[in-house]
Amino acid sequence: MSQNNEFLYSAEIQLRVRYSETDQMGYCYYGNYAQYFEVGRVEALRELGMSYKIVEEKGYMLPVSSYNVKYISPAYYDDLLTITTKIIDLKGVRLYFSYDITNEKGQLVSTADTTLVFVDKKTMRPTTPPEDFVSLIFSKK
Amino acid sequence: MSQNNEFLYSAEIQLRVRYSETDQMGYCYYGNYAQYFEVGRVEALRELGMSYKIVEEKGYMLPVSSYNVKYISPAYYDDLLTITTKIIDLKGVRLYFSYDITNEKGQLVSTADTTLVFVDKKTMRPTTPPEDFVSLIFSKK
Amino acid sequence: MSQNNEFLYSAEIQLRVRYSETDQMGYCYYGNYAQYFEVGRVEALRELGMSYKIVEEKGYMLPVSSYNVKYISPAYYDDLLTITTKIIDLKGVRLYFSYDITNEKGQLVSTADTTLVFVDKKTMRPTTPPEDFVSLIFSKK
Amino acid sequence: MSQNNEFLYSAEIQLRVRYSETDQMGYCYYGNYAQYFEVGRVEALRELGMSYKIVEEKGYMLPVSSYNVKYISPAYYDDLLTITTKIIDLKGVRLYFSYDITNEKGQLVSTADTTLVFVDKKTMRPTTPPEDFVSLIFSKK
Repeated sequence: MSQNNEFLYSAEIQLRVRYSETDQMGYCYYGNYAQYFEVGRVEALRELGMSYKIVEEKGYMLPVSSYNVKYISPAYYDDLLTITTKIIDLKGVRLYFSYDITNEKGQLVSTADTTLVFVDKKTMRPTTPPEDFVSLIFSKK
Repeated sequence: MSQNNEFLYSAEIQLRVRYSETDQMGYCYYGNYAQYFEVGRVEALRELGMSYKIVEEKGYMLPVSSYNVKYISPAYYDDLLTITTKIIDLKGVRLYFSYDITNEKGQLVSTADTTLVFVDKKTMRPTTPPEDFVSLIFSKK
Repeated sequence: MSQNNEFLYSAEIQLRVRYSETDQMGYCYYGNYAQYFEVGRVEALRELGMSYKIVEEKGYMLPVSSYNVKYISPAYYDDLLTITTKIIDLKGVRLYFSYDITNEKGQLVSTADTTLVFVDKKTMRPTTPPEDFVSLIFSKK
Repeated sequence: MSQNNEFLYSAEIQLRVRYSETDQMGYCYYGNYAQYFEVGRVEALRELGMSYKIVEEKGYMLPVSSYNVKYISPAYYDDLLTITTKIIDLKGVRLYFSYDITNEKGQLVSTADTTLVFVDKKTMRPTTPPEDFVSLIFSKK
């Protein structure tokens, strides 16, 4: 998925590795990247025109159903990382993202992909996304 | 508060410092102790006879309104820590806890106290706790 | 990898979902599973006969180079989860694990696999593991 | 400490509450504020002229020895928070900070203070800070 060159939308953010996110190896702990990718997709959706907060207020939630990540170079404390988030596709109830992270030296730190599922907050069952979300997601292709 | 020798109930648990909880200093990150104290009070309430999960199912939540902690000796990766949790008092809407953490060598790692407030999940306003909780909390004195 | 039925060693642990690990969806946050798998492999190595702490004291570290996880049923606050960790293989500098998580009802919550790389703490370069580790890992097959 | 109107330096940053930082109450988990204050003091030191990363590279570390926090109004997912960090004093081996957090509506979310201790990374014993740090910290008064 992350090698896919076709995507619906792409957005870039920057964030710094916090001290709390390091471990005694002196690396950013491997479990903390999930938060970075979450921030990446949240900001991609905001930039696209519908924040994730609004998606929840409309009665949906978007749990992650699958997540694959490769750790290529370590990220260190205080590194200013660039997270590039690509919205790959929306098919039925599933929304596909891919990501890469680079550091200030331009080194590739990580690549990843996630699959998210639209869930109705009342029924807690998978559901198709709202019309305006669908329109928006395909509007920038 | 944590010097107070009077308390309503006391309980002990053990947990190990996870790798994710260390930082590049090689210490357990200072922010992670809050989780340990949370586990301490959750298990104290379960042992006393009403799990925090049940408290929430009854329509209450217990956010923390104040938290004070002293870091005395560092906690390290894989240390097996003993958390002693004391329920100090229940006054009106407020529930007071104090804690200490010791390591396997018997060294004092940390002392802390927290104040929690009973909140009604519907109104999101402070409220007195349910009768059965009040009875329980004073039953072991 | 996680479908692989052959493995070198298998170990089971139980842990409870902490309040800190939930998110406002009411689920255990997807990023926190990485910690659970870390606890799973740490305890598997300890049970096998060489704790990860000892591995580090011998001059090695074991960063994760790849991690794939499927979220099948949500894990909720206070759920008592069973993590089954399988050591799949050791090839050159790489150590392969797979995992599954089930809840108290016996439902499958998650499956995952990770690849870890032996790194020399002095040179910070990949290196073959120490002899005694290699012997141990193949001893229980 | 946090009511003290005298301070050596003050700096402001903004950050957003991440989804990972919420809990099932729908609040930012009380333990995550420690990370926000860490980011606040790190950026205050950077703005003042010596990043914490540089402090560590000079052979020092700055563990927290005491931390007190009041939770006044909840912080919610996606809230853009303003963290004001004040360097209160440097006395011997101890560096004192106070903090407050406000939300976009101007509501006070939290106040806190921390005491940090200069530690020599080689001896792991408390030590006076380097001369250039001392000069810098008193330079803006």
